[in-house]
Amino acid sequence: MFSVEESLALIGRGADELIKHDDLEARLKLGRPLRIKAGFDPTAPDLHLGHTVLLNKMRQFQDLGHTAIFLIGDFTGMIGDPSGKNVTRKPLSREEVLTNAQTYADQVYKILDRDKTELRFNSEWFDRMSAADMIHLAARHTVARMIERDDFAKRYAAQQPIAIHEFLYPLVQAYDSVALRADAELGGTDQKFNLLMGRSLMEQYGLPPQIVLTVPLLIGLDGVQKMSKSLGNYIGVSEPPIDIVTKTMKVDDDLMWRWIELLSFDISIAEARKLRADVDAGQLNPRDVKLRLAREFATRFHDAAAAEKAIAGWQAVVRGDGDTTLLPLQRVNIPMEGLRIAALLTRTGLTPSNSEAMRKLKEHAVRVEGQVIEDPQRIFEPGFEGVLQVGKRNFARVQLVVE
Amino acid sequence: MFSVEESLALIGRGADELIKHDDLEARLKLGRPLRIKAGFDPTAPDLHLGHTVLLNKMRQFQDLGHTAIFLIGDFTGMIGDPSGKNVTRKPLSREEVLTNAQTYADQVYKILDRDKTELRFNSEWFDRMSAADMIHLAARHTVARMIERDDFAKRYAAQQPIAIHEFLYPLVQAYDSVALRADAELGGTDQKFNLLMGRSLMEQYGLPPQIVLTVPLLIGLDGVQKMSKSLGNYIGVSEPPIDIVTKTMKVDDDLMWRWIELLSFDISIAEARKLRADVDAGQLNPRDVKLRLAREFATRFHDAAAAEKAIAGWQAVVRGDGDTTLLPLQRVNIPMEGLRIAALLTRTGLTPSNSEAMRKLKEHAVRVEGQVIEDPQRIFEPGFEGVLQVGKRNFARVQLVVE
Repeated sequence: MFSVEESLALIGRGADELIKHDDLEARLKLGRPLRIKAGFDPTAPDLHLGHTVLLNKMRQFQDLGHTAIFLIGDFTGMIGDPSGKNVTRKPLSREEVLTNAQTYADQVYKILDRDKTELRFNSEWFDRMSAADMIHLAARHTVARMIERDDFAKRYAAQQPIAIHEFLYPLVQAYDSVALRADAELGGTDQKFNLLMGRSLMEQYGLPPQIVLTVPLLIGLDGVQKMSKSLGNYIGVSEPPIDIVTKTMKVDDDLMWRWIELLSFDISIAEARKLRADVDAGQLNPRDVKLRLAREFATRFHDAAAAEKAIAGWQAVVRGDGDTTLLPLQRVNIPMEGLRIAALLTRTGLTPSNSEAMRKLKEHAVRVEGQVIEDPQRIFEPGFEGVLQVGKRNFARVQLVVE
Repeated sequence: MFSVEESLALIGRGADELIKHDDLEARLKLGRPLRIKAGFDPTAPDLHLGHTVLLNKMRQFQDLGHTAIFLIGDFTGMIGDPSGKNVTRKPLSREEVLTNAQTYADQVYKILDRDKTELRFNSEWFDRMSAADMIHLAARHTVARMIERDDFAKRYAAQQPIAIHEFLYPLVQAYDSVALRADAELGGTDQKFNLLMGRSLMEQYGLPPQIVLTVPLLIGLDGVQKMSKSLGNYIGVSEPPIDIVTKTMKVDDDLMWRWIELLSFDISIAEARKLRADVDAGQLNPRDVKLRLAREFATRFHDAAAAEKAIAGWQAVVRGDGDTTLLPLQRVNIPMEGLRIAALLTRTGLTPSNSEAMRKLKEHAVRVEGQVIEDPQRIFEPGFEGVLQVGKRNFARVQLVVE
């Protein structure tokens, strides 16, 4: 068993905001497993590391002996966008919901402890609810307070339409906490308003209000923007081990420390502090820390053997004597008529500019499929697939396609 | 049968706003009975002339061959005020709703044609509605447009709380028009926003939008404020015939013409114009027109014989030789220790001031129970019941009670 102090320390790791610390402390002292809710969209999931910040926090609660409630908001998902204005939000069938739930399960149980997880659907209680019940629920909150929510406030000020049912959805989410008798709810910082509504609604229903814990958004591979599919700065939890390792190794050192705080189970906060001091003192190569993190990710999303193989592959490649077929294949869009070698190197990201590529060509530092290239007029056309190399450690395995 | 022109003229009589004239004309030309909806509160009704402006309009439609739908909004009535803030709006039981509906029936069929009336309750369709249906309904309107409603706009600007369910009620009312396939909806001018929402919702449900007809609020006996129970300036439809006649005869001449427009079936607009010209020319005593209106009211809410008896009683009293026991009994609150005669006359409304009362006493123009009173020190105590008279035509039958 863990002491209340140990629990508070682990729960607080990397967290953004805790409302309220004293409530959590009191609840932990009850000595029973707490019910830790987190809500998820019922749409087809394809999770990346950014999503796992929240899942990791759920796992930490599980490790401390508590129950994680993985709640799929299928009730509103099956309604879709009833105003018909958002075509991308079409109603899901029950079959689609169940298929998506299975896809979730395949991914999230790489992190969550299946035995300490309650998988729930809010249709369980909302399908039984009447129109009158919904009116009762709507009476629990005022228009003015709802408009205060950041996105509503902006749209209202910009005179963009807000359909009235959009005011019901946060109440639906809040009521889920009532139905589940949640002790705490976790979510991203952007969910704070909704989580607090759950807190207030529980009080109105005569229940002890849930504790609210928000986790930050994860910065992506570019070191600037939050990790997202559409920005391409992500590592998917279902990517092959070599991709997970290669991408992780590209993260810059500053971001690495933040990722450790938010994503590592293996490296404690105390150890991370020690590692950082060693790096700062020049006694430790940050690449070795990053390798450890890459190994942890590849192990978590695959297994230890696959992780070791991927790391060995990556190391062989960067030493220049490895099996380049292990490199992740990068699809590069080029014009139909092809690209000269310098332009191709720049477009692939191996050189920062065409003039730098020309310099490397003159230095005999450019290889394609292991052969030195000297002719700057050499053209590569769509359909080409092979390994480009600049200098000793800079590789890309590319497939050229028509842009 | 009535021509479309005749129908439009009768429907337009005294009406406030018609949206839209062309739609109504087209609908009338269909030649089938139209479905004319008006919604009523499910709370215990005690109707006065002010309410009958709307009922009369329904009756006019019936006289033109159409069906009046008397809709009782019991669904929301049985919910009450779910925010619990309005204690006067407590939930009604189904039994109370049915009792109140009977009370309505006792009163409204004095005006409506029972055979052309559909008595409906919106719980018929809303009790079957699910929470998901309510969300679909809420998606049909935007927050911004709802806040435009006058009372919401004022409360929002004044930072008074508006519970979110209050935004659902106008949609519930609007959906009633969908469920009833209403051709037109009638209501007071203050209902215009809600009636138009019914119009727009029907279009969204692929139905021809209902025609909206608003009727004005009736000015009460004081000639200034709208008729209302709480202001005391009303004539109740269940009052005794003598009260209906006596109160009607007190209405001033200007207001009388307006009342004729809004409340008379007997006097057509053309005849009213003729009567007014005769009065203006000094060829007709307005009191005779008022007597005709009073007779019509007493006949409508009682019967012809009762009306004649009440009119005879009123005339006898104003001639000074009549049966004063026919006068309506007025309860007057006075102090425990009683009131001097002058103060009593003023409080009863027979004299505008105590000094005027003193003047009338000196003129021997004050009688109590037919006996001239001269002593200004004469005190009347609680428990006294009798007829007070000032001059020839100014009577009050009073009962003095402790204030």
